[in-house]
Amino acid sequence: MSAEPVSRRARPAKAPLSRDAIIEAGLRILDRDGLEALTMRRVAQELDTGAASLYVYVKDRDDLMAAMLDEALGRVGFTAEGTWQERLRALVDSATEEMSRHEGLALVALGSIPTGANALLVLDRMLALLKEGGLDDTTATWAVDLIYLHITAGGAEQSAYNTKGMEQNAHIAEVDRHYAALPADRYPMITSMREELLSGGDRERWGLQVLINGILNTPVHQ
Amino acid sequence: MSAEPVSRRARPAKAPLSRDAIIEAGLRILDRDGLEALTMRRVAQELDTGAASLYVYVKDRDDLMAAMLDEALGRVGFTAEGTWQERLRALVDSATEEMSRHEGLALVALGSIPTGANALLVLDRMLALLKEGGLDDTTATWAVDLIYLHITAGGAEQSAYNTKGMEQNAHIAEVDRHYAALPADRYPMITSMREELLSGGDRERWGLQVLINGILNTPVHQ
Repeated sequence: MSAEPVSRRARPAKAPLSRDAIIEAGLRILDRDGLEALTMRRVAQELDTGAASLYVYVKDRDDLMAAMLDEALGRVGFTAEGTWQERLRALVDSATEEMSRHEGLALVALGSIPTGANALLVLDRMLALLKEGGLDDTTATWAVDLIYLHITAGGAEQSAYNTKGMEQNAHIAEVDRHYAALPADRYPMITSMREELLSGGDRERWGLQVLINGILNTPVHQ
Repeated sequence: MSAEPVSRRARPAKAPLSRDAIIEAGLRILDRDGLEALTMRRVAQELDTGAASLYVYVKDRDDLMAAMLDEALGRVGFTAEGTWQERLRALVDSATEEMSRHEGLALVALGSIPTGANALLVLDRMLALLKEGGLDDTTATWAVDLIYLHITAGGAEQSAYNTKGMEQNAHIAEVDRHYAALPADRYPMITSMREELLSGGDRERWGLQVLINGILNTPVHQ
């Protein structure tokens, strides 16, 4: 026998190129090396191929980022337990978490109407929950828009903190010193409410409750 | 007389370098050439100096971006007319507008606690308006956080649309075709509420009213 088959067995088979493989490679690079490292050239290197081969499966970097966002949203959990508000809260928390997990993905969502298969499933579930809560169609659809904006903003904010690797308590202490040194005549409210401004507590949970209460009290057609 | 003074007069005097001049140059580059063009080297070129000279006045690109954001927020208008809700709405609209005017600035705000002199003036005015609306201190401070997040998200969203130069109606028509082709069994809500989902109307104004009504109905300490 020739050495040929041995050589083939010794070398691991190259995974076949596909849109899914490209998306997964993109997420690996993003999580390992950050947003600036995510170029089509780097994705091609990661897959041991040329950049030109990628364009059979993805249109460009924007298309890839959008697909990566939708892949992340495919991991959002839906629960069947609890009141509609509890299920909505669980859904929003899970979507915010998935968006914040990968740098820059929330920003992709911030500037576009959702069209990805998984993003639309999240929207569809939210619409069903809001209808269960008794909202009319117009208010429910506008509310879903607003809640989705809130999810992307929360995800982007959290992701920015993660990326900077800021130690949150140290950061707050620094801001507190800055606020303490402000002139009270120019910033009367901030200086008098400084402690409350930087106080702890579950602000995320409160923020979503504000949205829910506000939506229930603000029908589009009054 | 020698030719020397003539030569000096023929050449326009170089503006003295300052933090303000660097911030203005940064905004000019951002508005003219976009976020990716905004490098310390390009700012130095714009000011006809070397990059090393800039670092006397700004720490790095992040510091410059933060200063540019605060410069933009210095143009936010305050009005003394109307109810507290009307004045809050005018303030939020103006801040969103200023943030959206320059690509990427809203994203800077999204990942940091405000510390700029002008950002803090906006926060101070918002706190005063919320106190006028009868909120307790804790709720007012948490509310300001939430409204500021809403402003940055709205600004980032608007800025993304502006940057892509998307023709909004054409974009909505494209999304509508996409939604119309979705399977009704998998997306029952989206397919049945498709018209409402993409309907026009002043969603921004409604969104802020939702926040205000929600805040008034959700004290932090119940």
